[in-house]
Amino acid sequence: MAEKITPRSQDYSRWYTDVVQQAQLADYAPVRGCMVIRPYGYALWENIKAALDRRFKETGHENAYFPLFIPMSFIQKEKEHVEGFSPELAVVTHGGGKELEEPLVVRPTSETIIGHMYAQWIQSYRDLPVLINQWANVVRWELRTRLFLRTMEFLWQEGHTAHATYEEAQEETLRMLDVYADFAINEAAVPVIKGRKSESEKFAGALASYSIEAMMGDKRALQAGTSHNLGQNFAKAFNIRYLDRNNELQYCWTSSWGMSTRMIGCIIMVHGDDQGLILPPQLAPIQVVIVPIPGSDAERGAILGACDTVRRALSDHGVRVKLDDRDEYSPGWKFNEWELRGVPLRIEIGPRDVTKEQVVVARRDKPGREGKTFMPMVGLPQAVAELLSQMQQDMLRRATEFRDANTFEPQDYESFKEAVANGFARAWWCGAVACEERIKEDTKATTRNIPLEQPGGSAPCIVCGAPAHEVAIFARAY
Amino acid sequence: MAEKITPRSQDYSRWYTDVVQQAQLADYAPVRGCMVIRPYGYALWENIKAALDRRFKETGHENAYFPLFIPMSFIQKEKEHVEGFSPELAVVTHGGGKELEEPLVVRPTSETIIGHMYAQWIQSYRDLPVLINQWANVVRWELRTRLFLRTMEFLWQEGHTAHATYEEAQEETLRMLDVYADFAINEAAVPVIKGRKSESEKFAGALASYSIEAMMGDKRALQAGTSHNLGQNFAKAFNIRYLDRNNELQYCWTSSWGMSTRMIGCIIMVHGDDQGLILPPQLAPIQVVIVPIPGSDAERGAILGACDTVRRALSDHGVRVKLDDRDEYSPGWKFNEWELRGVPLRIEIGPRDVTKEQVVVARRDKPGREGKTFMPMVGLPQAVAELLSQMQQDMLRRATEFRDANTFEPQDYESFKEAVANGFARAWWCGAVACEERIKEDTKATTRNIPLEQPGGSAPCIVCGAPAHEVAIFARAY
Repeated sequence: MAEKITPRSQDYSRWYTDVVQQAQLADYAPVRGCMVIRPYGYALWENIKAALDRRFKETGHENAYFPLFIPMSFIQKEKEHVEGFSPELAVVTHGGGKELEEPLVVRPTSETIIGHMYAQWIQSYRDLPVLINQWANVVRWELRTRLFLRTMEFLWQEGHTAHATYEEAQEETLRMLDVYADFAINEAAVPVIKGRKSESEKFAGALASYSIEAMMGDKRALQAGTSHNLGQNFAKAFNIRYLDRNNELQYCWTSSWGMSTRMIGCIIMVHGDDQGLILPPQLAPIQVVIVPIPGSDAERGAILGACDTVRRALSDHGVRVKLDDRDEYSPGWKFNEWELRGVPLRIEIGPRDVTKEQVVVARRDKPGREGKTFMPMVGLPQAVAELLSQMQQDMLRRATEFRDANTFEPQDYESFKEAVANGFARAWWCGAVACEERIKEDTKATTRNIPLEQPGGSAPCIVCGAPAHEVAIFARAY
Repeated sequence: MAEKITPRSQDYSRWYTDVVQQAQLADYAPVRGCMVIRPYGYALWENIKAALDRRFKETGHENAYFPLFIPMSFIQKEKEHVEGFSPELAVVTHGGGKELEEPLVVRPTSETIIGHMYAQWIQSYRDLPVLINQWANVVRWELRTRLFLRTMEFLWQEGHTAHATYEEAQEETLRMLDVYADFAINEAAVPVIKGRKSESEKFAGALASYSIEAMMGDKRALQAGTSHNLGQNFAKAFNIRYLDRNNELQYCWTSSWGMSTRMIGCIIMVHGDDQGLILPPQLAPIQVVIVPIPGSDAERGAILGACDTVRRALSDHGVRVKLDDRDEYSPGWKFNEWELRGVPLRIEIGPRDVTKEQVVVARRDKPGREGKTFMPMVGLPQAVAELLSQMQQDMLRRATEFRDANTFEPQDYESFKEAVANGFARAWWCGAVACEERIKEDTKATTRNIPLEQPGGSAPCIVCGAPAHEVAIFARAY
């Protein structure tokens, strides 16, 4: 905790790793590319899970669990899928002391094994739709890894649905994109752009992929969640069929969608500052920390008593509150620690506060005096709840303003290059892979997505000048 | 659903598999020994998780997540541990298209990798105790597998704690045994015997292991949860040390404890009957199902309206309720299905009930007329909640009576053999491995545990006649 966090302006990447480790969100594991999610990081993940899971259930989904191991032959059944995932597979070749006849793949994603089961469970149109989600760990053999953002093993949820028609699968795909956007905006205070991925960026085996894209503190993009319309590709590979109302066999239309522990990296980079984390109140494991300010020995009992009374009142009001009554650390040390760990509100209670029946409340997102106010103990829980809600809104507003201020609409390729060096570029694109590739070579930026909200009409492609009918978001990305 | 369940008396093992599959709790996966937990089974697991997780947090534990992959060298660091787990390991030898320098083991349990991390996190007595739990999947290469009871991959929680003294580690070990027993008794309605495992049955690497043991419907035993005092074995293997108050380096004392999806198998076998599952109300995904009894076309609207009113009233009262308003199935068919799936209470509402403002309530655990009562719609939620609570108690009482009626206290070896052929035997045991082994050879029964509650005194060992100071539970086990 005593170590210093590298300032963002000095080395953003180093700042990120410092924050993750010093805030005790995660740690490197002894296996290359793997991470340990420490209790504070896992508590954040539990809140993310709960907020997503509630939304999944409200939209009619059930949870289930499918095996970790997938026969190698399954992965090979869908052509694009195997091409996309082959380089990233971890393979079990030995079990119980013997070499296996068929190697087992540690799931990188579960379309194939779930497709195999759906083929057995689905018989008739009456069985549709099937709306299942799985919370699980997955493994992708990544060479360059970063805590939360890209790790060999990560935790996620993967929804897998089967429908009678293209239209229903497409409706589901966009519904879950909306669920992700709603979660990002209203729980994580992260503004996102909903859009379609380009052909070259879509999921291996999908008809069409959609994503939500967010801008990080260094103005780079992060894909925070994806939703795929898989068409009939997996249904045909795994023979997922149903008897329709006319008693004819039809292939199902399937979708899949996922959000992962990567979202934690997103929250860190959207909101964090040089003091460390700033967690959105809706998801913060600890929303309020109470720090007693020592007075004389005679006052000590009264101060701790007042702290505990406040703690209980807040807790009873549904606020996630912690009283830091450790003797071995000074208040200043505690202030730094809880700022580093991003706790939204700090309450200080000293001898004068006890007398005056008041507390000092400091907002994590407003430095120094600006964020400090006195509040009477009477009615404190309501006032704290309101302040948390206000802070949540302010965080979203600030992140939106930051993104908008760094999103450009360049009119020619020279200013386009300047734009993607400094943030997001919204630009007309003809859809040609060649133009995408030229951008990547020239600027390292990629097509993030083609926003669902379009201006309409057409204009020349920012690269080649050919008629373009859509605007895309371009940026360098994580 | 239309298939018939094999009666228990005919083939208990077949009955079990029929129930698991037909109630749609789980299904066989395409990978040998693996299972798919279907939504209904997973919803039961979610309720088990919530009930356990609440208890873990109330006793001061936090959740975290450690990697799936463990370097082979870690497993080999603790001598007994490697001997115990080597035959069961699944091994990843290839990643990202290349052969790995060091093979990775898919975790069979996480003492080693967690021990490695604790060695880095723990410096001083101020860092102790460390009280962490993990919800995870683990893999053990089992040859003979059965859904939920013994599968190659299963879901579980594993608690791992580190302490300054033997006493604290032992206190934690027994505290968590109590937590498991409390969960089993008060949530799963499963009476359990808390006790110490014999030396030959203890966890590979533990100083002492403790278990809760339950009697299944076929009078065999099932170990439903274990808690281990690991002594300093793992601390020494992984160098988990702390500076004590005198500034001297000391090895920590660690514990671990786990409960798994096996508990679902336990619940099925303790409570199920020839009609299928009977789920304890506390854990049942659906506590009450409402089945409309069709009248004339003119009455249809009023009946469905009443059903929905009742559904909403129960749901508002916190009851997990489902209205089965499917047209394509008859009431009789629905009764069978929900009995098979073990829903505690069924509410029937027909034309006469609407007129009389009453409903018929049928208890799953009491067959036919005996379990049926009329209840007025006014005050129904309270009455239903009481009935659920009553049923929960009755299920525990019945399971306890069944166990006690089939637990014997044989006074000589001949009657001992008869006892373990027909249930549990409580008998004096000298503690010698030779006696344990003779019992196993003669009867297939094993030492389940040495109950914490002991009569005191001593008596001749049931096998060899040498002085014995403890009574043990012997039974054939899953």
